[in-house]
Amino acid sequence: MSFPVLNIELPAWISAMFLDGDRAYATDEARMDLALELAARNVSEGTGGPFGAAIFDMDSGRLIAPGVNVVVPSRWSGGHAEMVAFAIAQQRLKSHDLGADGMPRCELFASTEPCAMCLGATPWSGVRRIVCAARDEDARALGFDEGSKPSDWVGQLGARGIAVLRDMRREEAVRILKDYVERGGPVYNGRAS
Amino acid sequence: MSFPVLNIELPAWISAMFLDGDRAYATDEARMDLALELAARNVSEGTGGPFGAAIFDMDSGRLIAPGVNVVVPSRWSGGHAEMVAFAIAQQRLKSHDLGADGMPRCELFASTEPCAMCLGATPWSGVRRIVCAARDEDARALGFDEGSKPSDWVGQLGARGIAVLRDMRREEAVRILKDYVERGGPVYNGRAS
Repeated sequence: MSFPVLNIELPAWISAMFLDGDRAYATDEARMDLALELAARNVSEGTGGPFGAAIFDMDSGRLIAPGVNVVVPSRWSGGHAEMVAFAIAQQRLKSHDLGADGMPRCELFASTEPCAMCLGATPWSGVRRIVCAARDEDARALGFDEGSKPSDWVGQLGARGIAVLRDMRREEAVRILKDYVERGGPVYNGRAS
Repeated sequence: MSFPVLNIELPAWISAMFLDGDRAYATDEARMDLALELAARNVSEGTGGPFGAAIFDMDSGRLIAPGVNVVVPSRWSGGHAEMVAFAIAQQRLKSHDLGADGMPRCELFASTEPCAMCLGATPWSGVRRIVCAARDEDARALGFDEGSKPSDWVGQLGARGIAVLRDMRREEAVRILKDYVERGGPVYNGRAS
């Protein structure tokens, strides 16, 4: 027999956002703007959960890959925004390791801090910095399950040479999560046992 | 611009293993046999790292999805055997949640205990039991980086209703890892900083 294939791809509206080609994002603020816009539009377009991410060349600010949550439409529990961004960036740069010699230095911006899976995936991806808006506990307070993370996850990433900047535009990001929940968006991953 | 798509698919030799269609695996031993065979053949076929996994219907023993490590050939750092098995099983059963109502009760067999990413992904997948061969520390001792896992990860999965059985055919699984390393197979994910 043959087994099915999973195609990890971005919703069509994302390509339409970038019809004029590559854009550079000069500041951390501009980069986080994009991650938050992706999170909010993913909800308004009806293409998944309220989470956005983007990978940039740290030095030039060039966008390498956007990511949004595609869990429900893709029928894939791994389809968190960060995982999608890692996958698309690695396809684009043609390597499983964004930190390999010859690669641009890559960083991840995320609208919410990573869950246990995305946290575990971060060192494997090769990114050198992550910048997050909403805190893990903000998401948990709204019913999203973030999984079991080591309590010193920030220090542990640091020990691997991955810098973490937290709380950038936190309130705005929490607003996006709240809007989604208040509109009755599905909060999966919440099974207790 | 349009962004690339990642196709998560199994190597062709796996489909060839199942030309006669679905097979049932009556015992835990038979199920682990398959996970170990996948790990060993993934090396001998040259299609990835020495890790195999498989998802079964716990009750009937029917194979739902195999998985092997495809990190290097797929250019995807998320392509661990467990992640691939989750993705293929979810495509096959047409749901992001293998634990949803109406699904068969699913379990994962893995040739090595999950790394931090695959551990974090396990509750999201919907499986109800995991059975592992080589220990996390066996892989670490050979240079594989398993990431930062909560020390009581077995108990934490248990609290979520996911049973864990360890050390089944551990020696055989360690042999597969050792053979790979001794032959000079690439051990990635090992960057210190």
